[in-house]
Amino acid sequence: MIADKMKDCVKNNSVIRQMFEEGKKLEELYGKENVYDFSLGNPSIPAPKKVNEAIKEIIDTEDSLVVHGYMNNAGFEDVREAISNSINKRFSTNFNKNNIIMTVGAASGLNIIFKSILNPSDEVIVFAPYFMEYNNYIKGYDGNVVVISPNTQNFAPNLDEFKQKITEKTKAVLINTPNNPTGVIYSEETIKQISKILEDKQKEYNHEIFLISDEPYRELAYDGETVPYITKYYNNAFVVYSYSKSLSLPGERIGYVVVPNEMEDSNNIITAITIANRIIGCVNAPSLMQKVIMKCIDEKTDLETYDTNRKLLYNALTSYGFECVKPQGAFYIFLKTPISDDKEFCAQAKKFNLLLVPGSSFACSGYVRIAYCVSEEMLKKSLEAFKKLAKVYFKI
Amino acid sequence: MIADKMKDCVKNNSVIRQMFEEGKKLEELYGKENVYDFSLGNPSIPAPKKVNEAIKEIIDTEDSLVVHGYMNNAGFEDVREAISNSINKRFSTNFNKNNIIMTVGAASGLNIIFKSILNPSDEVIVFAPYFMEYNNYIKGYDGNVVVISPNTQNFAPNLDEFKQKITEKTKAVLINTPNNPTGVIYSEETIKQISKILEDKQKEYNHEIFLISDEPYRELAYDGETVPYITKYYNNAFVVYSYSKSLSLPGERIGYVVVPNEMEDSNNIITAITIANRIIGCVNAPSLMQKVIMKCIDEKTDLETYDTNRKLLYNALTSYGFECVKPQGAFYIFLKTPISDDKEFCAQAKKFNLLLVPGSSFACSGYVRIAYCVSEEMLKKSLEAFKKLAKVYFKI
Repeated sequence: MIADKMKDCVKNNSVIRQMFEEGKKLEELYGKENVYDFSLGNPSIPAPKKVNEAIKEIIDTEDSLVVHGYMNNAGFEDVREAISNSINKRFSTNFNKNNIIMTVGAASGLNIIFKSILNPSDEVIVFAPYFMEYNNYIKGYDGNVVVISPNTQNFAPNLDEFKQKITEKTKAVLINTPNNPTGVIYSEETIKQISKILEDKQKEYNHEIFLISDEPYRELAYDGETVPYITKYYNNAFVVYSYSKSLSLPGERIGYVVVPNEMEDSNNIITAITIANRIIGCVNAPSLMQKVIMKCIDEKTDLETYDTNRKLLYNALTSYGFECVKPQGAFYIFLKTPISDDKEFCAQAKKFNLLLVPGSSFACSGYVRIAYCVSEEMLKKSLEAFKKLAKVYFKI
Repeated sequence: MIADKMKDCVKNNSVIRQMFEEGKKLEELYGKENVYDFSLGNPSIPAPKKVNEAIKEIIDTEDSLVVHGYMNNAGFEDVREAISNSINKRFSTNFNKNNIIMTVGAASGLNIIFKSILNPSDEVIVFAPYFMEYNNYIKGYDGNVVVISPNTQNFAPNLDEFKQKITEKTKAVLINTPNNPTGVIYSEETIKQISKILEDKQKEYNHEIFLISDEPYRELAYDGETVPYITKYYNNAFVVYSYSKSLSLPGERIGYVVVPNEMEDSNNIITAITIANRIIGCVNAPSLMQKVIMKCIDEKTDLETYDTNRKLLYNALTSYGFECVKPQGAFYIFLKTPISDDKEFCAQAKKFNLLLVPGSSFACSGYVRIAYCVSEEMLKKSLEAFKKLAKVYFKI
C-alpha cells in the first residue's frame, strides 16, 4: 500500500517512537523535573516580544485580504526587499528582492533547491557528522548522498577526502555552519578552500557544482565569532535561511533561499525554485509570518542565555573527564563517548535520566549530541547526573 | 543547470508571466477600475472577524514557546481532536485525532498523499475539466495522469469511460467537488456509483485503489446543496481539506488530510503521510494558524456575497445568449465559448478588458473559466463588457 521509497522511513519511525516512549516512561517514573532531556534541537528561549507586537500591529492596521491572502509564490515583494537590504547591510552583499525566495522554513528551502537542480543519480556531498534528514531531501529527487568522513580533530571539513570524492556526477555540496551536531563554525579560510576546490573541479568537469549553505544557526555564534557569507566566496552558491532559531519560530515555518545574480543561469534557477515552491505544495511561505519578519528584521534572540548554558556544560563535562571540541555556535555539544559504542553510552546515560542522541544518528559513531537549548535551571540540575555518568568510566 | 523534470515548467512559466504582464498593461492603459479580472481563484471576502480576534487571544494568553514551537509533525493534538469532533458532528462520522494530519494547505496535503502511495508508473485518474496543477503533484512522484474526458452535458464524471480506463496500474482516483472550474457538485448517487466501480475493480485486480477527494470548496455550496462525505461511501478514501476558501486564509497555508481507520493498512498510511509532511520540507502546518483554526472551528465565510455574484453573473450571461451549466458551488462559472477556439475567445474578451482563463488550461477546450470571487461592484460594472462580448457572436 505504501510507496516503496517510503517503506524504510516508516520502518525506522518505530525506533524513534520507541525512544520517545521510553522518555515518557522515565518521566512517569521519576517526575518530569527529574528527567534531563537533551535530545531535541528546539529553542528554549521564547520569540522576542516584538514578534507578538508585530502580529497585533499587522492584523490591526493592514488589509485582511492582503495579510492572509495569496501573493507571488516567491513571497511579498516588500518583505523580500527588506530582507535583501538587511543582508546587504550586514554582509556587504548586493542583493535585491529578486534574489530572495520566501520558504516554509529551511527544510522546504532545501527541498525546492534539490527539486530544481537534481537529476536521477546526481551526487550531493555532505560532511559527517551531519543532519541525516538531508538524506531524505536528496533521495526525494533521486539524488545520491556522498558522505565525507568526519575530521574528529576539530570537525572542520576533511578537504583531502572531499577533493577525492568529487566526481563527474557531483551536482552540489551541502554545508551547515554553525554546525548541527558539532557547534563548529567553518572559518573564512575553510570557505575559501572549499570554493577553490570547487572552482577547479567545475573547470575540470566543465559543468557547474553548487555550494548550498544551510544556515538556521547563523545568528547563534559565540565569543564574537563570525560566519562567512558564502556568496562572497563562490558564485554558484545558495544560502538557505530559517527564523526557527534566530527568532524562536520553528513551528511557524518561515525562512528564505538566496540565489545570487552571479550564479550561472540565475534567472532560470530563480524561476525553477519559485515554481518548485508552488508545486511541492507549499505554494508560498505563510503570509502573516512573512509580514512579521519584515517588522522584526533587526530583532535578535537572547544569545546570552544559550551562551551561559554552553559554558556551564562545556566546563563541567570537561572537568569530569569527557572530551569534546568546544562549540563556537548553534546550541549543541558533540561529546566523545568514553566507549566506542555510542548507543550503549546513551543507554547508560538514560540510567541517570539523561536523554542524549547517539552520534551514529549523524553518521559519526563514538559521539553523542547534547542539545543545551534547555532551561539553565534544568541544566544545572543535570550536572550531577553527568558527573555520575562520568564516574562509570573515569576515576573522578 | 535545471533538473530535466523542471524544464517544461520553467518554459511554460513565461506564458503565464506574459498573460500577467498583458493584464498589467491593460490596467495602465485603461485604469485598474476599468479592467475586469476574472482570472484568479482568490477569495474576495475577508477572513471572519473571529480569525483576527483568535490570533490576538492566542498570543496574549498562551505560552509563546508552544504557540510558535514545534509539535508532532501531524499537528497539535488538541487541534486535531477539535477538527475530528467537528467533522463527526457535521457528517456523522467517527474520527479521532489520529485520523487528522494538519498540512500546509490542500496542495501539500495532496503532495504528501502521493509521496506516500505512488510508485513509478502508477496511474492516477482525474476527470476533465480539472485543476491541471494536479499533474505536477502526481508527476513529482513519478506517477502518470490518466484523464477522463469531460461530460459537457452536466459535468458529472463520465463513468463509462472511467470504468474502461481503470487498469492494473491504477493506484488512485482524484475528485474535486465542488469543482474547479465547473462549480458542479457530485451528487450522492455519483459518489455511490464511483465507489461501486472502485470496489469491483479492487476485487478484479486484487489490490487497493484510493479515492482522494480534494475539498477546498466544500463550504461553498449554494441553494442548500450538500456535498457527500466520501469516507461514508468508500473505505480507501482520503479527504484533503483547506481553510483557504472557507476562512479566506489562502496565504496562511493551513489545511488537513483525513485518513479513516477503515482504510486498509491505515496505521502505516498515517505514519507515512506524517513522515512525508516532514520530509517534503513542510515539517508541520504553521503552528499559530493551527491554534486559530481550533478557535474558529464553527466560523463560516460570507457565502451570500458569492451567491449574489453567482446569480447576477449566471442570469446576465445566459440572457446575453451564452450557455453554461449552472454552478452549484465554488466561485466559478464554466462558460461554453461560442467559437471552438477558447484562446481566441479569451483574446476577444480582453478587447473589452475582460480577463478570463481558457478551458484548455483545465483540459477542456471550448470553454472559459470565470472566477466570480470579485467585488459585487466590479461584477456589475463588468456586465456591460460581457454584453459587448456577446454581441460579437450573437444577435442581441
